Parts: sequence; C-alpha cells; structure tokens
Amino acid sequence: MDLPILADSVRLADDGVHILDRRVFPARREWVRCATVEDVAVAIEDMVTQSSGPYFAALWAMVLAARAAVVEPDPLAYLERAGERLIATRRTNNHLRKAVHAVLSGLAENDLVGSAMAGAKAGDERYRSRSRALGTHTADLLPDNASVLTHCWADLYLVELVLAGRRAGKTFAFHCTETRPYLQGARLTAATLAELDVETTLITDGMGAAVLAAHRVDALVTAADRVTMDGHVVNKIGTLGLAVAAHAFEVPFMAMVQAPDRLAPTAADVPIEYRDGAEVLTAAGVVDPRIRGLYPAFDVTPPRFVSTVVTDRGPFDPAGLARYYEEES
Amino acid sequence: MDLPILADSVRLADDGVHILDRRVFPARREWVRCATVEDVAVAIEDMVTQSSGPYFAALWAMVLAARAAVVEPDPLAYLERAGERLIATRRTNNHLRKAVHAVLSGLAENDLVGSAMAGAKAGDERYRSRSRALGTHTADLLPDNASVLTHCWADLYLVELVLAGRRAGKTFAFHCTETRPYLQGARLTAATLAELDVETTLITDGMGAAVLAAHRVDALVTAADRVTMDGHVVNKIGTLGLAVAAHAFEVPFMAMVQAPDRLAPTAADVPIEYRDGAEVLTAAGVVDPRIRGLYPAFDVTPPRFVSTVVTDRGPFDPAGLARYYEEES
Repeated sequence: MDLPILADSVRLADDGVHILDRRVFPARREWVRCATVEDVAVAIEDMVTQSSGPYFAALWAMVLAARAAVVEPDPLAYLERAGERLIATRRTNNHLRKAVHAVLSGLAENDLVGSAMAGAKAGDERYRSRSRALGTHTADLLPDNASVLTHCWADLYLVELVLAGRRAGKTFAFHCTETRPYLQGARLTAATLAELDVETTLITDGMGAAVLAAHRVDALVTAADRVTMDGHVVNKIGTLGLAVAAHAFEVPFMAMVQAPDRLAPTAADVPIEYRDGAEVLTAAGVVDPRIRGLYPAFDVTPPRFVSTVVTDRGPFDPAGLARYYEEES
Repeated sequence: MDLPILADSVRLADDGVHILDRRVFPARREWVRCATVEDVAVAIEDMVTQSSGPYFAALWAMVLAARAAVVEPDPLAYLERAGERLIATRRTNNHLRKAVHAVLSGLAENDLVGSAMAGAKAGDERYRSRSRALGTHTADLLPDNASVLTHCWADLYLVELVLAGRRAGKTFAFHCTETRPYLQGARLTAATLAELDVETTLITDGMGAAVLAAHRVDALVTAADRVTMDGHVVNKIGTLGLAVAAHAFEVPFMAMVQAPDRLAPTAADVPIEYRDGAEVLTAAGVVDPRIRGLYPAFDVTPPRFVSTVVTDRGPFDPAGLARYYEEES
C-alpha cells in the first residue's frame, strides 16, 4: 500500500521544497512552498514540520543551496553558510546536523548540483532504511494482534512498525494519547494510523495509566528523541508518567531510537527544552495573569522504567547500550 | 475574604434552581435556570455542574419536587420518583444518593415543602462543615510554603484547604493539571485558586510525572469521588497515573474524602462511568470515522499508591479505614 502522506511530506520540486504543514494537519492538507534555504529555515523554526520532517527539509534545502551556489563567487562557502543556517533552526536533536553533513560531505566541485542531489538522496535513503530496520525489530518483539499504547508521534518509526508487522502477518491495534498541548497524538498519530487502516483509539494524556492498569494494551511503545548511553529515555513530555505506570502494572515499555547517543553518557548531558508556558494556557482560554503556565517539552525516563531500547541494530537492554557500538568494531 | 463563586454556584430561588454553568466558566459566568427536577437532572447529565455541584443541585431539586408534589395524588411516591431520577443521572459518586436521602428522610407529610427545605438546608450545612473539617485536617498535614500538585477540581475541599492553611498561618502554592477533556483543572481549579490569590501553575496532564520526579511539589493532593473500605481511591481519570508517579518518586499522595464508603468494600463494588468517547475526539477536531475515542471518566488507585486518606475525622492509613466507623460507636 502507499505510504501515508506524513511519511512523504517534504518534497523537492523545480520551484523549491514543498513541506506539508503539520500545524493544520489533518484538518487541512496545505503545502508550504520554500523557494530558498532561508524559506526552509523559517518553515522549520515556525514548526511547519517537526519530528523527522526537519531532517528531510534540510536535505532538500541543501540541494536548493547547490542550485543557487553555482552563480556565487565562492560556491562552497555559500553552501557551508546555508548548512549553518539550517542547523541553527532547532538544536534539540542531531537530525539537522546529520542532514547537512550528508550533503556537504559528498560534494564534487565540478558537479555541485548533481553531487548535492546524490548526497541528499543517500541521506534520505539511509534514514528510511534505518527506520525500516527499527520498525522491523520492534514488530518482531510484538505478538500478532498486539494492542499497543503510544504517545506523541513516532513518525517513520511508527509507520515502519505497522508495515513490518504486516509483512510478518501481524496485525497491531493502537491506543494513542492526544499529547497536549500540540495534540500530535490526535492530529498526526491517530490520523496516520487511520490512513494505514489500523484500529485506533484516542485517549487523553491522563488516561494512559488506567489503560495500562486494565491491561487493555500489551506494550507501551514510543519513539525517543534521545537515549543516553546509560539508558535514560528522553522523549516528549508525558512519556515518563506512562513508563512509570507501565512498570507498575508490568506492561513492557519499548523505546524506539535509531541509535543511542554517544555524545550523551547520561541524562545530565541532555538539556531539556522549556517552551513558552503560555502554550499550556490557551486550550482553556486561561488569561488570568495570576496563573502561570509551565511547559517542559521533554521528560527523562530513568532506565529502571524502560524494558527495552529498540534500535536499527535490534533490541538492547537499557543497561547494555554500549554493545550497540561494540558491534561496529 | 468572600468564598469564590464556585463555592456557591447552585442556588434555590422562587423560579427554580440556578446553576452556574461550569462548562463555560471562567470565560463566561452564565447561570442555567432549572424550573423542574427533570431540568436539574438533565443539567447534571449535561455537566452544567459537576464535583460537589450535583449534591447541592439534588438537594434543591428535591425542594422543587416538594413544591410540585403538593398537587400530586401521591406526593410521597412522586418525591421518591424524583429522587430516583436524580440519583440515576450519574452513578460513580454517592453524592446524589446522600442529597436525596437528606431530604426524603426528614419529610413531614403535613408540611412537605417546609420539611424538604429544612432537610435540604441541613444537608447543605452538613456538607459544608464536613468539607471544612476535611480541609483543616489536610492543611495540618502540610508544612508552611508547601507546593502541592492537584488534579481536576477538588471543589469545596480545595477551597477549605486553602482557607484552613491561612487560618493556621500557612501559605500553599499549587500546580494544577489541566484535566482533559473538560479542562476542569484549568478552568475551575486554576481560576478559583487565582480568585483566592494563591500562587498557581498550570501544566498539561502529561507533565505531572515530570513535576513529581523533579520534586517541584511536596505532595499530591486530590479529592476522591469515593474511597472503598480497603483503601482504593476512585477519582477523576488521571489520578492513578499521578499517584503511581508520586509513589515512584516518593512524594506523598493524600486523597481527600469526607468518609470512606461503607457500601463499597472494594473497587469491584464501584461501577466506573464510561462517557461518550466522542468527547475525547473534539479537541483536535478529529472526525475520522476510523478513530474511536475512549473516555473512562474515573480511575481506581490501589491502596499501595495512596499515602493517606484524609477525612472529616482526620487522616487514616488506607489499610485502616475501618477505624473511621469504629470511632462512631
């Protein structure tokens, strides 16, 4: 079957990079056309796309940069400045740095556009194939007819989990938390699972523990923005509460990440982004100046509440993540 | 200082029972006039009022019933049917049964309206004085400058907790969960705490565990719709997840209830209300027919996650609730 639209929501065309606007999806399917690197950078900053979206946007933005560079006096310097601009848009994870590196590292001065395009395509393929491996390893851990609780939006990992299950003859059903304040669970996850014809139940963020206690689900499965080398899972705020409840009621928690982060030995190495508390106040129309909003964007789940970290190289115990890199040598 | 408006939000008048519409509060202060028992029953079913609101609404609705009963062929049977109608509106909580009983138990056939009014007034006074005692006992357990996490809307118990703290020279600050899907925490709790000039921070439902893990709060304090004799706390969906996280991070959880429920030896004796799942879908504008909403209105927290049950007779260990009634004899 076709990929759901969110799995192919950043596209290169002759007139620029077209990005599906996740801020209004699924109510409206609107594309933002970015004619220049600066347009793409602003779109990322404005949250037109998020999760893995900025990775793909940066890849294709570097092709735009290569097209523009050919008339510049110093094309390579121009491309490097373009990369710096893209990397500076959001600093929460390493996606943007990797995307820019994927293009810059393979540039050929005699064919800037062609080599940039080849680098971007290779980066696109690599990300997709690692996500596919991750989805396959996760599907292997779940039985047929498994009921899965997920939180926020695991993007390609989730899509690949569903598709890998199908290839293995397994059907999964999902409970999704709505994931306030941006409602990614309701707007992106539930909509995409429905698009994939997966049985999907939406709950509010406060219902997760009851769903776990009642064993309505067989596993808690989320993506992780980062996993530290000692097994702390950094992910969308709310993951911690679900993980603690899963642990209390003996439901396994599997965190999906392409690889643990060698640059983060432990949780203290990961700065937690605090977003504007006003974003919490708006849903209820709270405007009383005496009420303050608090909005940590991520939380940290200690390894004692994590059953398994699933990577593109298979599942690991959170206490044994160093082995992910040992296998390299 | 004056009581906040939510502490006096169901009022009897000549033309019916006037109920402050909590569905639009605090954005608008609108009152729904209920001319008949049926109007009050529908208002309760439609969530015009909730928490302790239905208790007061049922008291005064029974006075409406007494006014109407005097022209009925069998006034007592009419009043009993009225009581049954009110009790049937919502089932998880005992408030309605108690309110109806408060009026029916003191009826004098020769003065139906007067005796119903006396019973309703006594029921009103009793509920308020017990809530005051409960607030005082809870305030006694908290140190000055305590930071408290609360969930949903503990109504009079919360107001009395704040006022009792002040009488004892203590200042408390609160973190409130917004409590989706109805946002009672944002709309009722935060607004009322602000009205009481209490330092108030609003978080989404998924942030509670992170707040507890960071020890930003000294205690989790919620009301309980019911506490079973073996210490299970039945309260607004979401309480369980917070209680489990509080336990994991060694923050005490105090559940406030006027009394444990002798009619509920254990959790199996409490039916959990499931509301229309569509109420979960609307926030994100989800209309895809393939996505189902699930909405258990309450959850059950096992006693192992409850530190203290605070009652109008003081604090009890959840394993020792039988002593609440032993003190009666």
